[in-house]
Amino acid sequence: MTSPLLPKASEDQEALLLNRAKHPKHRPLLVSFALEEFEFPSSVCLEEMPLFPQWHLPLKLMAILMALTFLYTFMRDVLQPFVSQSRSDFYKIPILVMNKTLPWTAISLLALVYLPGLLAALLQLHRGTKYSSFPGWLERWMSMRKQLGLLAFFLAALHAIYSLCYPMRRSYRYKLLNWAYQQVQQNQEDSWVADDVWRMEIYVSLGIMGLGLLALLAISSLPSISDALNWREFTWMQRTLGYAALVLCTAHALVYGWRKWVEPKHYVWYTPPSFILASLLPATVLLVKAVLLLPCLDRRLGQIRRGWESPRPPRGRGVTEKDSL
Amino acid sequence: MTSPLLPKASEDQEALLLNRAKHPKHRPLLVSFALEEFEFPSSVCLEEMPLFPQWHLPLKLMAILMALTFLYTFMRDVLQPFVSQSRSDFYKIPILVMNKTLPWTAISLLALVYLPGLLAALLQLHRGTKYSSFPGWLERWMSMRKQLGLLAFFLAALHAIYSLCYPMRRSYRYKLLNWAYQQVQQNQEDSWVADDVWRMEIYVSLGIMGLGLLALLAISSLPSISDALNWREFTWMQRTLGYAALVLCTAHALVYGWRKWVEPKHYVWYTPPSFILASLLPATVLLVKAVLLLPCLDRRLGQIRRGWESPRPPRGRGVTEKDSL
Amino acid sequence: MTSPLLPKASEDQEALLLNRAKHPKHRPLLVSFALEEFEFPSSVCLEEMPLFPQWHLPLKLMAILMALTFLYTFMRDVLQPFVSQSRSDFYKIPILVMNKTLPWTAISLLALVYLPGLLAALLQLHRGTKYSSFPGWLERWMSMRKQLGLLAFFLAALHAIYSLCYPMRRSYRYKLLNWAYQQVQQNQEDSWVADDVWRMEIYVSLGIMGLGLLALLAISSLPSISDALNWREFTWMQRTLGYAALVLCTAHALVYGWRKWVEPKHYVWYTPPSFILASLLPATVLLVKAVLLLPCLDRRLGQIRRGWESPRPPRGRGVTEKDSL
Repeated sequence: MTSPLLPKASEDQEALLLNRAKHPKHRPLLVSFALEEFEFPSSVCLEEMPLFPQWHLPLKLMAILMALTFLYTFMRDVLQPFVSQSRSDFYKIPILVMNKTLPWTAISLLALVYLPGLLAALLQLHRGTKYSSFPGWLERWMSMRKQLGLLAFFLAALHAIYSLCYPMRRSYRYKLLNWAYQQVQQNQEDSWVADDVWRMEIYVSLGIMGLGLLALLAISSLPSISDALNWREFTWMQRTLGYAALVLCTAHALVYGWRKWVEPKHYVWYTPPSFILASLLPATVLLVKAVLLLPCLDRRLGQIRRGWESPRPPRGRGVTEKDSL
Repeated sequence: MTSPLLPKASEDQEALLLNRAKHPKHRPLLVSFALEEFEFPSSVCLEEMPLFPQWHLPLKLMAILMALTFLYTFMRDVLQPFVSQSRSDFYKIPILVMNKTLPWTAISLLALVYLPGLLAALLQLHRGTKYSSFPGWLERWMSMRKQLGLLAFFLAALHAIYSLCYPMRRSYRYKLLNWAYQQVQQNQEDSWVADDVWRMEIYVSLGIMGLGLLALLAISSLPSISDALNWREFTWMQRTLGYAALVLCTAHALVYGWRKWVEPKHYVWYTPPSFILASLLPATVLLVKAVLLLPCLDRRLGQIRRGWESPRPPRGRGVTEKDSL
Repeated sequence: MTSPLLPKASEDQEALLLNRAKHPKHRPLLVSFALEEFEFPSSVCLEEMPLFPQWHLPLKLMAILMALTFLYTFMRDVLQPFVSQSRSDFYKIPILVMNKTLPWTAISLLALVYLPGLLAALLQLHRGTKYSSFPGWLERWMSMRKQLGLLAFFLAALHAIYSLCYPMRRSYRYKLLNWAYQQVQQNQEDSWVADDVWRMEIYVSLGIMGLGLLALLAISSLPSISDALNWREFTWMQRTLGYAALVLCTAHALVYGWRKWVEPKHYVWYTPPSFILASLLPATVLLVKAVLLLPCLDRRLGQIRRGWESPRPPRGRGVTEKDSL
């Protein structure tokens, strides 16, 4: 084989497997779409290799969140009209219900990316020292942030495509035609609702900007990119860009809600509209972050992180042992 | 120049060219938009370097497929109405015809990614051994899968953007307005067609999910990503995700077709609608895959790939020689 | 911590910081979403590290361009109707004005990627030698091209999403309904405007293709990808693909303009429509490039770049010193 793209000689591949470090450049040369078992040496025991260990927990979390949000939306948007007015809106499941599940899960995951950092900061403030390790669950959570963030971006991107395809659908076309018919029947010359227009222009714009920032964050998490960044650039990306994205996405959700907060008709079966539940977690995260940015707390945290310790005996260890039980 | 982004000293660059391995980190530092000839040392004889050797064949294949599908769609969607009803639909060429060509080519390329693996498996089953190399054309085909897959994703992404821009176009707006006018004239209160609505909601949703999986596959084929994957993760990505994407895209095409299969009006000039031809190849691939997953065949293939050989004398060599003639 | 994704031991990280070369593989393993200060060793003095030095100038340039184009569009599309007809179109700011600012800035940045190369070529032709360094500002400009190109792509992608969301907006829906109402009132059976239809089908299609090419260029600028390319492939990408993208985007802008050139109603307050100003720079760049491709100039440039020098004494140095003052 002349093609550098597929290392044929299986000893190459075994060598590669036995000693990755020596052949760093071989690995990417493998075909990346469709690889059959017989294409790699028998010495490879796939069963013994880990399968995305860092992704198990984040994916489980995502699956659970998606299931819950799906059921909640299905119950409110499809089941309720069917039961109460026996109106069959089941056609909403593939796109409309999906597209409430996706953003809800996405923004929740994004909030879960920034929550552990805040908890750690609070813990440090409480302990008054940085020289005591964090409880195990917090460690594990922190090690999951990259995966959570990438999943959040993936779902957000899907949410964008789903939203963009709305006007393309037959259902939307038929609705438009019927609205036009009604407008003519009611001889209503102008159907413009300034309030509605403003709401949508703003939340769509916010959503697109939020997606743009998330895309930058996702790109910066590519090994070859983060390789080229230094620590300060790296931290700046996550801190500044990350929180900016969270702010934009939360604003996107809140403006989407507009004044549904107070309109009773949105509380079908006494359940709040999904955007309220969706924006609770990110709003809390942003609030706590804002509190931590208060000069007094910020200064103290800075001292602690520069190695300063509070006079009282460091009880970090004990705390950790207790916590990690 | 202090900027690390553009290595000025040309000896650096010559060194880099003479010995890539020693300076793995220099290369990415070059500007990546617009590079003029005088910016690299005279020792570089561009003419002697290969220009994307692994991409020639896949790109040719793509070009041929696109030309054929374009002509077929042009003939059916533009020429036929012009000839038979002298209706001039030439405005359809830039977007509507393009957007039948793109998905058709994309799904065909995607099917061609998975076909060679199946052929190889069938060959192994037939030979009853894995200790005999594959015919040359199959080797070459297998080494092309990554390129085919990436091209399929690229065209699928373009197809998505083209589809999303449908309702934005003037042509769609004018059609909508005329439909609204007719609906009023015919005093038809509701133009809802449940069947049509369901069809579109489902195939759009399937398409978006398929695109999402293809995006994951494409990302996993970035050198720096596939570098970080181990063999099992790598294989799982291509096998599971890859076939899942193919299933979703094929379903996308079939649901798009819905029941046009049986509606004679879609067989203009006795030619079948394009989605039928488009889904033939992927459907066949999935069918063969399903057959190979039958317990009996699957077990036998497993044995062979663990090194088992069928009792009859290994005729692999002969076969290969014959095949590769 | 078993997870390879987060190096816990801080000495690892310090080692990594002190000697990046030795641990090339550690860096990408860090979490890439949300990194708190206490997560890296105290030996890291963030303040001493540079923060995206190569991006400062391009970002400033982008900010200035966006501000100017935003003001210009705001003045023409929002202020003018408000002042002259006291029509309040402020709802246009979040999306419609934004989406004139984005493409304008994007295409200007893209043109600025290719301009310095042309200036350098002209300078070489004028000096008749390649053995004299370029003025400092040109050097600096050339070292910015990658950043300029990536920013252009980022803004172009945002522009695409903004455009795709047009028909989704309430404002568009209400406009459609009102148009439908008017069409019925005027009893106008067909509102089809062939000219308008053609214009939109063509410029949308051109825009999508341009975006596709820009995406390929952006991907090819990922370190791990450009790593795998040889010089010829690299140059081909930027030259051929890059200029093809610029041609497509300029055509996209010109077809968008269609015949607004000559329609006085588009010259509100005696200002030309933005697409004219937007396409001036890229059109100039393409024109100069076309001139440089004329056989006579192209041959001479080729000679110079192969080391040929014009008979007159090389005055490069002097020139540079003068220029770089």
